Amino acid sequence: MDRGYGYHAELIQRHIELVPGYPGIRDALPELDLGEETLRAILGAAAEFAESRLVPINRAGDLQGCRFEAGRVLTPDCYKNAWEELTSAGWNSVDQPANFGGQGLPLFVNTACRELFDRACMAIGMLTGPTRAGTQVLLQFADPQVQDEWLPQLVAGKWSLTICISEADAGSDVGRIHSQAVQNSEGRWRVTGEKMWTSFGDHDLVERIGHLLLARSPGAPPGTAGLSLFLVPNKVKNSSGEWVVNGVIPRRIEEKLGLHGSPTCAMGFEGAEAYLLGRQHRGLSQMFVMIQSMRLMVATEGVGMSFGAEQAALSYAAERKQGGDPSRPPVAINDHADIQRQLLAMAGRVEVLRGMLYELAVRIDLERHGVAADERHARVTQWLLPIAKASCAEAAFEIPSAAIQVLGGAGYTREWPCEQWLRDARMMSIAEGSTGIQALDLLHRRLWRDDGETLAAFIDTARKELQGVSADLAAPALLVIDRLKRVAQQLLGWRERSRDAETGAVAFLQLAFLAVTGWIAVRLASRAGNDRIGRRLAAAGRYWLSDIDGRAALLERDALAGSAKLDQFHQILNG
Amino acid sequence: MDRGYGYHAELIQRHIELVPGYPGIRDALPELDLGEETLRAILGAAAEFAESRLVPINRAGDLQGCRFEAGRVLTPDCYKNAWEELTSAGWNSVDQPANFGGQGLPLFVNTACRELFDRACMAIGMLTGPTRAGTQVLLQFADPQVQDEWLPQLVAGKWSLTICISEADAGSDVGRIHSQAVQNSEGRWRVTGEKMWTSFGDHDLVERIGHLLLARSPGAPPGTAGLSLFLVPNKVKNSSGEWVVNGVIPRRIEEKLGLHGSPTCAMGFEGAEAYLLGRQHRGLSQMFVMIQSMRLMVATEGVGMSFGAEQAALSYAAERKQGGDPSRPPVAINDHADIQRQLLAMAGRVEVLRGMLYELAVRIDLERHGVAADERHARVTQWLLPIAKASCAEAAFEIPSAAIQVLGGAGYTREWPCEQWLRDARMMSIAEGSTGIQALDLLHRRLWRDDGETLAAFIDTARKELQGVSADLAAPALLVIDRLKRVAQQLLGWRERSRDAETGAVAFLQLAFLAVTGWIAVRLASRAGNDRIGRRLAAAGRYWLSDIDGRAALLERDALAGSAKLDQFHQILNG
Repeated sequence: MDRGYGYHAELIQRHIELVPGYPGIRDALPELDLGEETLRAILGAAAEFAESRLVPINRAGDLQGCRFEAGRVLTPDCYKNAWEELTSAGWNSVDQPANFGGQGLPLFVNTACRELFDRACMAIGMLTGPTRAGTQVLLQFADPQVQDEWLPQLVAGKWSLTICISEADAGSDVGRIHSQAVQNSEGRWRVTGEKMWTSFGDHDLVERIGHLLLARSPGAPPGTAGLSLFLVPNKVKNSSGEWVVNGVIPRRIEEKLGLHGSPTCAMGFEGAEAYLLGRQHRGLSQMFVMIQSMRLMVATEGVGMSFGAEQAALSYAAERKQGGDPSRPPVAINDHADIQRQLLAMAGRVEVLRGMLYELAVRIDLERHGVAADERHARVTQWLLPIAKASCAEAAFEIPSAAIQVLGGAGYTREWPCEQWLRDARMMSIAEGSTGIQALDLLHRRLWRDDGETLAAFIDTARKELQGVSADLAAPALLVIDRLKRVAQQLLGWRERSRDAETGAVAFLQLAFLAVTGWIAVRLASRAGNDRIGRRLAAAGRYWLSDIDGRAALLERDALAGSAKLDQFHQILNG
Repeated sequence: MDRGYGYHAELIQRHIELVPGYPGIRDALPELDLGEETLRAILGAAAEFAESRLVPINRAGDLQGCRFEAGRVLTPDCYKNAWEELTSAGWNSVDQPANFGGQGLPLFVNTACRELFDRACMAIGMLTGPTRAGTQVLLQFADPQVQDEWLPQLVAGKWSLTICISEADAGSDVGRIHSQAVQNSEGRWRVTGEKMWTSFGDHDLVERIGHLLLARSPGAPPGTAGLSLFLVPNKVKNSSGEWVVNGVIPRRIEEKLGLHGSPTCAMGFEGAEAYLLGRQHRGLSQMFVMIQSMRLMVATEGVGMSFGAEQAALSYAAERKQGGDPSRPPVAINDHADIQRQLLAMAGRVEVLRGMLYELAVRIDLERHGVAADERHARVTQWLLPIAKASCAEAAFEIPSAAIQVLGGAGYTREWPCEQWLRDARMMSIAEGSTGIQALDLLHRRLWRDDGETLAAFIDTARKELQGVSADLAAPALLVIDRLKRVAQQLLGWRERSRDAETGAVAFLQLAFLAVTGWIAVRLASRAGNDRIGRRLAAAGRYWLSDIDGRAALLERDALAGSAKLDQFHQILNG
């Protein structure tokens, strides 16, 4: 019954083909031959790699976990071969620049491969993800000699990168970073500070690790405006040409609920040599290249893991027999109405998330390659990003939990992968900007900062596509868009009442999510095709639409409830 | 900031005092002196025991887990002393009969103690819970000589009991149990079969384990009507008076997401000697005594663990500083609107769940002790039970997850208890009748079987109490009750359309939950008092009410959506 990763690849491919911008990027890059056949070959190979090489290390890595011994971090034994295979096959460099050894494919192809890989083993993706995102930062902000030194090694998977932002007292509040960077008279920088929550901050899979680190130089302004971005290698060559430790000290690894194969490190920097990247005091905005890439990565992970869990539940429910007339053989549990309801809810959610993901990935490619250079296009992308990050992260936890419910006792055991997806995914709505932070981002930076223009661009884009569809089908999506618009108009008047607006920010984000997914669901329901794959996507879209406006009504109310609803808080706090 | 278990006991006590039936049970049992002072002393001692003795074994037991060695199950090392202390202090026998050595206190007192203990360490409660519930079965259905042999040992904590219902092919579908019981010519029974999911099916904390087991005798009718209930000891005395193994073979323990301190056993029975309990073929209905007790136990665990997580989040958010004007020191994160919203949602939910729990526990005591013998009273109890079981189980998972969200990265680590509560609690909405099964129970047995009389009894009881309260305050609760009544009336007409009704059964259960908790929330908001404790409860009730009718409207629609919404299912299954 389990259709495996090949089926997964087919679904992804259909989604890509359904994105209106796909022909544009395909035709803009004729040398890459991004037609259906090439995509099928690439995704088929990625599916094969995921299923045969990454699935087996997922549970083994979870059970063995990482160790911190003699000041170094050791990853699970089974990761060594897998890393070697992954990097020698180039699966870590799908969209890395060809001139440094990468495959040079668009982002959406990398996203498709990542979705398959993350379903199979999210933990090892915590190494490829930041390295790939950091490579983009180096491409954009590093000096040519740093690029020439680092990029070929990174693309080859011989070296890796981390993101070092958080400190003990600076998590969501990045502006309070204390790490210091000091320049000597020769212009060379040294960094001192303590960083936390650094994935693969130390490990044994590569020869050298570079930390992309935010620090403050003497005299820098307070807050985020005083942060600069550095590349801090864990090793440097001494004057004799030997590799020596560069004052980068792994302090410990966290004991976590999940992601046991991904070492989450506390890192000390003790006067470590560093390269300044880009301009001083522009660290945070430069880092945003990487942060945005990481947010898309979280969305990708979320879709992959959610789908894995949905498929496990669908497959189990078709095989597990319970209930029905006691005088006859039991029926498959997917015959029961409540089980069908649960499975449809999962499948509907997964497919609209996936549709949103590829819409977003293709959009970014269209911008990168100059196919869509208009501001409206870019605005829609910016609108979608926090929504996709937050909603896919939440789904990646909730859908495995829903799958466990279908599996019953079996789902609670390690015989099935759902419990590991649940544990691994719980981090996703916290890391790379929590759901609450994404909601504030949507409110402050997307809605307020440009006076609703970003939202207007989204609504315009969605409505244009919906106009081409039968009114009946489009109706629920249009209703939700109307609600969103109404709420946004009110919130635009609440800039001086930011606490009122912030009370409802997560509800606003969720409402915006329903508006996006309504649009996507109509696309699936109307254009997915009438073969097996198309019928699944269409059914998922229709199911999603059947449910959407009632939920949106509740969120409309919650988004505008205002801070008066918090009046009880101090009674709870002091009660 | 963390107020600890003494504060927890104070909150419980206030809830008990607010239950309208409490004076009735207090006055009916004058010899027990169940006034405020006695309760305070008992709950204070239980809180002290939970905090000092059970909290320390919770993480240690989780980390070490249980082992299956040489055919026997070994519990975590730290459990030995804790079990000795727990049983010698009588905390396992709070409401066990005094004539067999128990404390003879009412169920609601035991519930209060269990709530404290389960917050501290749910895993070891998986031993006391079934033993206590099974004791009730023996009291009701065992022969006097079996009672005299078993009850003093069980109450003393020297022996224990399990529930053996599930088999590989008989989970929710109890009627498909295959285990066979055969009677020899002397009238002695022997049981053969394989059981699964037996908590503490084998372990090293007691000297003898009795399994309360459902099996089928030759010629018994198919389905649940052919099941008989047996007590199957793991050891019996041979003719020389020595203890020998009784054909009860632990097969393995499950590797689970959580509850690592509670061994979940697969058990083999190979011609094991057994005592028939009660009447042949009446096994399931007799077992319901135990099942009902276990469902209340799950609700109790759920409230305890949810509260623990809520308190961890409240405490962390008061101490953790992030954000605010970057030129000034950071503010506590509980200053942020979105964090306050999250904390209020948790606290509101915990307190209405707790109010429901003690309403239910006191009701059962009133019935047991003959204070409330009318049918209406019993109907309300039966109405509340599946609702309490399902809703507290869901909360026990969702509130720790919400707490992790407030704690951020810290919550994802083992430094804080939230991740363990999350893992331990995930079983609760599966075991003892999943949420889906509770919803079918509510629909078939509570609503349909007696033509809505049970619901009418609930509505009547709730409305009577709400009449005494200011109309403004009661209004949202009354609206939700009206919705529930409307939905129920329609569902009563759907008996011939059971698939339509079952599609919305979980939504109906959730709507019924909002109706119950609306009633309870009004009680808290209007009568909790004006001291520190009372102000928390009142604030929680008001917050809950602020939100309730919009949610109910959505559930009203979902409950009546009908099975047409499932039409897409086969496209998903075959897509």
